[in-house]
Amino acid sequence: MQATMVNLYGPVAEDMILVEDLLESAKQVEIPPLKRMLDHALEGRGKRLRPALVLLAGSFGDYNLNRLVPLGTAIELLHTASLVHDDVVDGATSRRGRPTANAVWDNALTVLLGDYMFANAAEMVTRTGSIEVTRLFALTLMKMTSGELDQDAAAFDVGKDIQNYLWRIGGKTAALFANATEGGALLAGCDPASVDALRSYGYSVGMAFQIVDDILDYSGDEELLGKPVGSDLREGTITLPGLLLLERYPRDNPIKKFFTARRGREERLQEAIAMVRETDVLQTSMEMARQYVGRACEAIEILPDTEARRCLHGLGEYVLERQS
Amino acid sequence: MQATMVNLYGPVAEDMILVEDLLESAKQVEIPPLKRMLDHALEGRGKRLRPALVLLAGSFGDYNLNRLVPLGTAIELLHTASLVHDDVVDGATSRRGRPTANAVWDNALTVLLGDYMFANAAEMVTRTGSIEVTRLFALTLMKMTSGELDQDAAAFDVGKDIQNYLWRIGGKTAALFANATEGGALLAGCDPASVDALRSYGYSVGMAFQIVDDILDYSGDEELLGKPVGSDLREGTITLPGLLLLERYPRDNPIKKFFTARRGREERLQEAIAMVRETDVLQTSMEMARQYVGRACEAIEILPDTEARRCLHGLGEYVLERQS
Repeated sequence: MQATMVNLYGPVAEDMILVEDLLESAKQVEIPPLKRMLDHALEGRGKRLRPALVLLAGSFGDYNLNRLVPLGTAIELLHTASLVHDDVVDGATSRRGRPTANAVWDNALTVLLGDYMFANAAEMVTRTGSIEVTRLFALTLMKMTSGELDQDAAAFDVGKDIQNYLWRIGGKTAALFANATEGGALLAGCDPASVDALRSYGYSVGMAFQIVDDILDYSGDEELLGKPVGSDLREGTITLPGLLLLERYPRDNPIKKFFTARRGREERLQEAIAMVRETDVLQTSMEMARQYVGRACEAIEILPDTEARRCLHGLGEYVLERQS
Repeated sequence: MQATMVNLYGPVAEDMILVEDLLESAKQVEIPPLKRMLDHALEGRGKRLRPALVLLAGSFGDYNLNRLVPLGTAIELLHTASLVHDDVVDGATSRRGRPTANAVWDNALTVLLGDYMFANAAEMVTRTGSIEVTRLFALTLMKMTSGELDQDAAAFDVGKDIQNYLWRIGGKTAALFANATEGGALLAGCDPASVDALRSYGYSVGMAFQIVDDILDYSGDEELLGKPVGSDLREGTITLPGLLLLERYPRDNPIKKFFTARRGREERLQEAIAMVRETDVLQTSMEMARQYVGRACEAIEILPDTEARRCLHGLGEYVLERQS
């Protein structure tokens, strides 16, 4: 176990091994090509932030790992499956310095790999024994794909506003964070007010997480991110910093020029990236992320002051400070 | 309601409108691009064979439409979602004479459309209130994608045998038929022997259905099918007729030549199609399909002799006789 995980996940850090074990078991299939693809997709070990949120939320009630671990694992599988499909959708060839599944195999097999993982996630969540949590999980995937689809359908369109952006990231990212904390609380039998507080925490932290992601796409270190700066804009996706730039400089805006340019597009793109980095839109974006974390921490004020609650506070800070 | 449906689905034909209504409600989303895509994907009204099987199976117990209709709808959504992704995977531009979603939009949006529909199907099945049936549903999708993935990973490979073919179509097609009848029986609270009989019926009819599909790909009317004869082989998929041809004529086989040819591939393909059509492999394949239908009808001998059972017998015949 990494030292950072112990610091980040405190009281549940040791139990995270059970999530790893269940993820490992999901790779054990008898179809060789599928096994190779699953090994690849689940190899790049992330921080498992979402499963940790399930366990932390569950600690505010009946901390039953037989129910919480399958939900945490299902959520991580769902998250990974959605990344697998996103990489097909975006035509991405690398993620965090590793080749994507669609780069190693092809789009056709990778679509099926993602489908299999979605199905496996759905099967995993039924192991919680809760039809309510299983239903929540399916609704979350509907929100995730709606948000993603809306974003992709609006590529290279400067007509969308910040409200639309917030709705979109609410679906594609925050919904799964909210599902993690709400689901954990429901499985632990928390009272409705605590369930609501934890759902609200998850949602707000998820919003902050995505905003920071979108900031890092402009300000981050290409080495750490494993992708070039400005990748979103290159694909036609305008995130919060770009939307703020359009709002402040509606005329003669380099994003508009990039989207409409017939030639010299790379130059236009670089101009847009430079302008985002030089103006204050990244600070303003970070301020919004900080507000979301503030709301998240406020929401859980009603919960008892446990080590888990302090952990959730710490995770809010971590989300703001992360560099990749 | 079409006259054929009344004949085919007998006692449950009228209730099928409830499945249509629920499918219709699934199209009502507030995201315009998603709405357009759902309208397109769910427009081509098929025969709704799988939902009918759910209702027919459910008629052998407590025929509760509040539980059976959501399962039937979920299964039709899952079936349609898998066709949407299959068309992306195969690069198909038309299906039954209509352009595919990936032909109208693009692969990226179509992958997300399919994901949304899978999620909606998963949500729909939770409305049955049964965690057992929800779990069965997720396991079915795992089998379906495993079968499809195995098939695609083995494209242009002559090393697979009939046993592998049967396993593969068991996953990609028969599993969903079996889910329809088993799920319907479980929701209706049938006794274990009846559940087993109905599951077995669904599985065998599904096997026959796919074998006939694979026969029609060689023998069918291109107009009725809405695709050229020999489409599977062109994509590198060897189905039962081709496998029988390879078994009988291991040397100098035109399929092998087609797969390895560097030039004159179209000519080789046409030779292979002609040889399949001229030898007895299509009759032998049909004989196997007939055996599966025989097994299906045998399995339900233990059930009471109701109109629904006679319908299931009739559906077995229909599966063998269909021309498209």
